[in-house]
Amino acid sequence: MAEPSSSAAPPPADPPAAAPAADGTEGAEGAEGATISKKAAKKAEAKAKKEAEKARRAAENAAAAAAKGAAAQTEDLAKDNYGQETHETKLSPDAIEVSVKNIGDEHVGKTIELRAWIQNARMQGAKMAFVELREEGTWSIQGIVSANQEGTPVSRQMVKWVGAIAPESFVVVEATVAKPLDPVKSCRVTGYELHITKCFVHAAAPSVLGMTLAAANRPIANFSDEEAPVEEGVEKLAIAPGAESSIPAATMLTHLDNIVMHKRSAVQQAIADIRAEMKELYREYLRSHGFKEFEPPCLIGAASEGGANVFRLPYFEKEAFLAQSPQFYKQIEIAGGRKRVFSVGPVFRAENSNTPRHMTEFTGLDMEMEIKKDYREVVHMLEGVLFHIFRNIQKRCADEIALVRSVYPSEEFLFPEEGKEVRLSFAEGQQLLREEGPEEFRNVSDDEDMSTPQEKALGALIRKKYKTDFYVLDKFPEGARPFYAKEDPANPKVTNAYDLFMRGQEICSGGQRINDPVELEARIRTKGIDPTSQGIKEYVDIFRQAGVPAHGGGGIGLDRVVAWYLNLPSVHLAAFYPRTPKRLLP
Amino acid sequence: MAEPSSSAAPPPADPPAAAPAADGTEGAEGAEGATISKKAAKKAEAKAKKEAEKARRAAENAAAAAAKGAAAQTEDLAKDNYGQETHETKLSPDAIEVSVKNIGDEHVGKTIELRAWIQNARMQGAKMAFVELREEGTWSIQGIVSANQEGTPVSRQMVKWVGAIAPESFVVVEATVAKPLDPVKSCRVTGYELHITKCFVHAAAPSVLGMTLAAANRPIANFSDEEAPVEEGVEKLAIAPGAESSIPAATMLTHLDNIVMHKRSAVQQAIADIRAEMKELYREYLRSHGFKEFEPPCLIGAASEGGANVFRLPYFEKEAFLAQSPQFYKQIEIAGGRKRVFSVGPVFRAENSNTPRHMTEFTGLDMEMEIKKDYREVVHMLEGVLFHIFRNIQKRCADEIALVRSVYPSEEFLFPEEGKEVRLSFAEGQQLLREEGPEEFRNVSDDEDMSTPQEKALGALIRKKYKTDFYVLDKFPEGARPFYAKEDPANPKVTNAYDLFMRGQEICSGGQRINDPVELEARIRTKGIDPTSQGIKEYVDIFRQAGVPAHGGGGIGLDRVVAWYLNLPSVHLAAFYPRTPKRLLP
Repeated sequence: MAEPSSSAAPPPADPPAAAPAADGTEGAEGAEGATISKKAAKKAEAKAKKEAEKARRAAENAAAAAAKGAAAQTEDLAKDNYGQETHETKLSPDAIEVSVKNIGDEHVGKTIELRAWIQNARMQGAKMAFVELREEGTWSIQGIVSANQEGTPVSRQMVKWVGAIAPESFVVVEATVAKPLDPVKSCRVTGYELHITKCFVHAAAPSVLGMTLAAANRPIANFSDEEAPVEEGVEKLAIAPGAESSIPAATMLTHLDNIVMHKRSAVQQAIADIRAEMKELYREYLRSHGFKEFEPPCLIGAASEGGANVFRLPYFEKEAFLAQSPQFYKQIEIAGGRKRVFSVGPVFRAENSNTPRHMTEFTGLDMEMEIKKDYREVVHMLEGVLFHIFRNIQKRCADEIALVRSVYPSEEFLFPEEGKEVRLSFAEGQQLLREEGPEEFRNVSDDEDMSTPQEKALGALIRKKYKTDFYVLDKFPEGARPFYAKEDPANPKVTNAYDLFMRGQEICSGGQRINDPVELEARIRTKGIDPTSQGIKEYVDIFRQAGVPAHGGGGIGLDRVVAWYLNLPSVHLAAFYPRTPKRLLP
Repeated sequence: MAEPSSSAAPPPADPPAAAPAADGTEGAEGAEGATISKKAAKKAEAKAKKEAEKARRAAENAAAAAAKGAAAQTEDLAKDNYGQETHETKLSPDAIEVSVKNIGDEHVGKTIELRAWIQNARMQGAKMAFVELREEGTWSIQGIVSANQEGTPVSRQMVKWVGAIAPESFVVVEATVAKPLDPVKSCRVTGYELHITKCFVHAAAPSVLGMTLAAANRPIANFSDEEAPVEEGVEKLAIAPGAESSIPAATMLTHLDNIVMHKRSAVQQAIADIRAEMKELYREYLRSHGFKEFEPPCLIGAASEGGANVFRLPYFEKEAFLAQSPQFYKQIEIAGGRKRVFSVGPVFRAENSNTPRHMTEFTGLDMEMEIKKDYREVVHMLEGVLFHIFRNIQKRCADEIALVRSVYPSEEFLFPEEGKEVRLSFAEGQQLLREEGPEEFRNVSDDEDMSTPQEKALGALIRKKYKTDFYVLDKFPEGARPFYAKEDPANPKVTNAYDLFMRGQEICSGGQRINDPVELEARIRTKGIDPTSQGIKEYVDIFRQAGVPAHGGGGIGLDRVVAWYLNLPSVHLAAFYPRTPKRLLP
């Protein structure tokens, strides 16, 4: 999809509310990698408030003037052709219903009917108004209402009324399709325009929007007013400060408080499209490889992973927990005779982490499969599904990716060809860090898990060395993995467990699980956990009910895949409704 | 898929644990519609316990005898060809890996390698044992271990050992494919058998299973031991009492306590396959009609529908709620510029209803769309997606449906041809009930919602009159619908809201929503709700942020669609992990 761009039409004579539309690309130019200070953000906010106040006064004046003008007017011959939509509203029975994106040469000279948003409306003199009509995200087309042309049922009053419709109102129009003399620069549809003969407002927008579409299309100026303390990660945001554009950028708080306009922005629509397609690609690949979809529960009776970071709730006379992962249930499916299963659904973490990487609810893409001979069969499958996503998203969503990049600039996501996957053992990764990483990582250990800065530094080294943003770290140390991780029989200091990374950040964790109840119980004791405790006992008992084959799997965080593929400044932008410790609305 | 059937092989000489496999159809014959009393259920349970005890004693004796026999034996020339699987376990490098279902003429005489469950193992004399090997749900094949044939590396000790493997152990075998003299009656694969040359136990089952596969394949004898009081609905269960079969049926409690065996049963695998396919058909149809998938949150900051039946939980310093439906969020998506959206995910009801129709967590198939001219566009779309499911599930899952029917007999699900949909107004439905329904419904009102018995009686009348189990009731009375339901402009006593039914039970509720904030607020007041209260205010504000087109939608309960399509005795059988007020495990 192309982004809406600044109109080349003349300035409005009778300006309605708010600011004119402008594209999202403008301000991003030359601002790649720029960082934003709190001060700059505050300045941007103050500017935005000032603009909004100015716009409101203008709107009030316009409304007053319109009312005055209308009263002075004589009979309006076009009075049935515009106004508020009612049940009596009548369009011509022969008007063709068509979508903006489908308008073509066959419609030229024909009467069409359209239901769309007014993206912008402006007067040109007293007898003509221009409107931008938008449909399905970014499909905009120019409309003209003119009382100049003879034979059209348009009056001066109608022109004035249409020219003053508040942007983001939803309208029903009847119009004749025409070819403009010059291509229309302000709209996505450049080769056609609409000569409007009827226009009814179906649902009016307020005269002043809480956030204009133009502002919503700008990169978000500041995430920290979600009340999150500024943390590592924030400093690397590729943000174009609002001060460099004529359109002030809004903060994340403003976006969330104006969720309707946030979602109407071309960039958020593109992110949502990419996300939905990635999810579909995930299912598509696994189904074609013999995986069956199942649905794990969210409400569970025991906190199987020790109880830290788990949401608890009263459940009739008992207590319930929200599942942190569907792993227990994936394993029951394998024990229950399924060879390969996958699930797509919400998982929950009651972690008070206010970073751009964390949310309390996110979407897990989980899978689990029987292992025939080697747990690397699972690694191969996980690599396969991610390759399938990376390869096809470029084809299916090329326009959407380009649009997101125009707002949030990022380097192309690199991944190897199939067969040339980059897999390092954890120890190899640590060695690389010690030998070629920054000074502070000269002494990293092979026995301890990595910190986020270590992961990011390693990601940068691997990108340089292997030309990939996607890779696997395998054979994690025993101490870094939970009790159910299968030890490497050849070296029990490490496990048959792995993480997958995108741009130096973990997006998937998985491994082979212990499938023998005796081995499992011994391991649980070694980890200092009571194997008879609530949740643990039920887990071990699964493997006592009947013989369970060797198996392994992984859980991919969809939000992170979307965010890191696009190199968004925060995973919250990839979510439909981000949930953080401070934010549950909308 | 065909169900596993009773073996025609000779009785075991050295019986291992538990009962032989038997099919699920046997006991169901002639028992259609039979009801079960608590007494009969108790009797069945008692019998099952007795059988289990008998089996355990037999297993103990067998194990003791085997140990004694083995000690007396001389050198075992086949000792490397069987036993517990270890890292040294070696199969021939030229053995072909093949799935049971793919074994064909090209494999005859070849050596293959298979990883499968022992479904049954039995000795025939001292030199031969029969095993049934099962893979991927119901794909079983007969295996023979014989020390009679010259040249095969099989000893008497090996035969004895293999013949005593506990059913539901997972094994790795190497075997030669052969054509049996007569078709094998006990297995799904009838035209081939395996002459086993190596057999290793990868994961052993206990010598006595908590529930045998044969018992798991029988219809569930009793649901009320989920601790639910016996309620309406239970009396119409088509249950074949265990007493009429040689295999005792188990209760729902036994099934849930033995979840691994529950899931290994052919009937549960078939139900899971049907469910996954229905879900896929839902997505497939909506995607092809321009719907975009989105993900509503489960954790929400306000209980938007008044707070009854909502789960609440502590959320850091605040309180959170679990979403009862994604409706608010579907509407935000439409307000946010999406024309058509759908979601698939969990929804929650904190309702203390212990009936075969209720669960506290279930899967919602939700959709919402812009209305162009008439809300019946939405009804048409909902009918369309359900027709798509009904039509295609018959094709894609014919075997699975037949298998479920062999355990839970039901009449064919009737639905009309496209274009001949059955839609009645609520008032027409009530009139039909008054005129042709049972005595007690002679005075039903057009202004009040229906009770479950009324719905079922109407379903029976409609089936008789219109030959359909699927229909729509439209124009529900104002008093029966929530505040957001749009009134019929022609008759404000009723709403543009509807329910969809299957076999007289509601599976979908939906309608046109009010999209004007002024109308919405007035309606909220009429309903006696404070429009400034938490949750309500945020809801109304969505329509104040910008103009929102007319829209409507519906929410389909996937669990119910699966259960009522198959006419299962309880919706709990359609769920992967049923959640009820009394049950959160596993």
